[in-house]
Amino acid sequence: MIQNFTTVRTVSELRQVIGEWRRAGLSVGLVPTMGALHEGHFSLVDRSVMENDRTCVSLFVNPKQFSPTEDFDLYPRNEAADAQALQCRGANVLFAPLVEEMYPADAATSVSVPGLGDVLEGEFRDGFFTGVATVVSKLLIQSMADRAYFGDKDYQQLRVIRRLTADLNIPVQIIGCPIIREEDGLALSSRNAYLTTEERAIAPALYTVLLKMVAAIQSGADSASAVQDGTQHLLSVGFMKVDYLAVVDPETLLPLSSATGPCRVLGAAWLGKTRLIDNVGV
Amino acid sequence: MIQNFTTVRTVSELRQVIGEWRRAGLSVGLVPTMGALHEGHFSLVDRSVMENDRTCVSLFVNPKQFSPTEDFDLYPRNEAADAQALQCRGANVLFAPLVEEMYPADAATSVSVPGLGDVLEGEFRDGFFTGVATVVSKLLIQSMADRAYFGDKDYQQLRVIRRLTADLNIPVQIIGCPIIREEDGLALSSRNAYLTTEERAIAPALYTVLLKMVAAIQSGADSASAVQDGTQHLLSVGFMKVDYLAVVDPETLLPLSSATGPCRVLGAAWLGKTRLIDNVGV
Repeated sequence: MIQNFTTVRTVSELRQVIGEWRRAGLSVGLVPTMGALHEGHFSLVDRSVMENDRTCVSLFVNPKQFSPTEDFDLYPRNEAADAQALQCRGANVLFAPLVEEMYPADAATSVSVPGLGDVLEGEFRDGFFTGVATVVSKLLIQSMADRAYFGDKDYQQLRVIRRLTADLNIPVQIIGCPIIREEDGLALSSRNAYLTTEERAIAPALYTVLLKMVAAIQSGADSASAVQDGTQHLLSVGFMKVDYLAVVDPETLLPLSSATGPCRVLGAAWLGKTRLIDNVGV
Repeated sequence: MIQNFTTVRTVSELRQVIGEWRRAGLSVGLVPTMGALHEGHFSLVDRSVMENDRTCVSLFVNPKQFSPTEDFDLYPRNEAADAQALQCRGANVLFAPLVEEMYPADAATSVSVPGLGDVLEGEFRDGFFTGVATVVSKLLIQSMADRAYFGDKDYQQLRVIRRLTADLNIPVQIIGCPIIREEDGLALSSRNAYLTTEERAIAPALYTVLLKMVAAIQSGADSASAVQDGTQHLLSVGFMKVDYLAVVDPETLLPLSSATGPCRVLGAAWLGKTRLIDNVGV
């Protein structure tokens, strides 16, 4: 079946398309992405297509969530392939604005989520969550979607987005979706494209280590020793640097010294020039 | 004519009321206030009633825009009188939430407008505009009004609100309304109630000084000398302290050394324990 599919570049066009759907009583799902789509993204699109009458996918590599030393320029971009794949998966509109459309020269406002946004990734990526919170607030308000879909892969991001959506009373349901992995366990990520063949062979160790940490704390080890063993393991198999391994409360993201109840185990580590993140729920 | 008038305390009730209006195709105006309503507020309500099918007035003394040393506890509150007056003016709903409804215990998100929010009032009232920007973002998103009305009295606040509305793509038209003054020129303010009889007699000098500054710069004086003369004048008539007098660009609020084009002249000064602000356009 050939879907009706269109690409729009401005907020006003987006609102026109979505406004027509709304007036026709149709429900709308939003899947925010930075493009370079993979099966992780497509799993969000599939779920949105299943749960909503219409699905909008946004593609915007958000400069505000990259620090000057990060990979904004290098970040993989392939809009034509993304658009074609989205049409096949049943999405209805691709919103792919230019930077000037999202951030006109005089734009100044920022949305921040102190606390949740300061720990873990926030400690290592200066301004990252303020950039994420600002752009996601804009996308949610621009689209006024009924539901918006985010992957558990960026677990802390999902928590930050749930928080800001509740705090700013944005009338959207935030839906978190499971991580999609390669057969060897590596979590899908657009940044996996940066890995050399050798690095790609080592990369699944991050997931292996998180699973080992879960097993260790479930059998009574304290978090500190699980983190220490995990770090050791990653460095020994060829990771250059471990930004963090952490056992935290799944809601507040505050560190837990041991795991008696639900917790989340997260990690970020460098393989050559590529920074990988992953996480596992307990 | 007796209007249908109701007071609601929760976002969910507010959305129910406004949702019914929307489904009936009615337009909605919002007038955000901190209560202690006077003719300045009523002029906003009148305009909203004239321009919209339904008018919602919010009454919320927003703790986030008061610093610990400011007058949050003292701020005048009289909801019963406010509600009665609003009904007579033709408003349809009063949204008067508790602090816990607006800021649940785990709320963390804040909206800030660096630049516009850092100068003038922002220099003297720590965190003020982040408090204002956060609560106004919430109110605009909660109500999804077509138009929202703010007074020129809080001129910088109006600029900050226009900025955040554009930057976050909130689909509302922000309407600024002229300052309402007493016969002797004093700008109406809920805080005028703090003034002693003696202070009340001195208070109009703030407006007089702003007008003199306008006359001076229009006849070629530079801003610095106008500010110096104005400050001198205020102190000589009995103001305790002048936080600032300033001649600024009406859009960017950046200081202007002289007035060749449009500008705004603003002032903030203390009369005893009461801080008064006012401004005049050129």
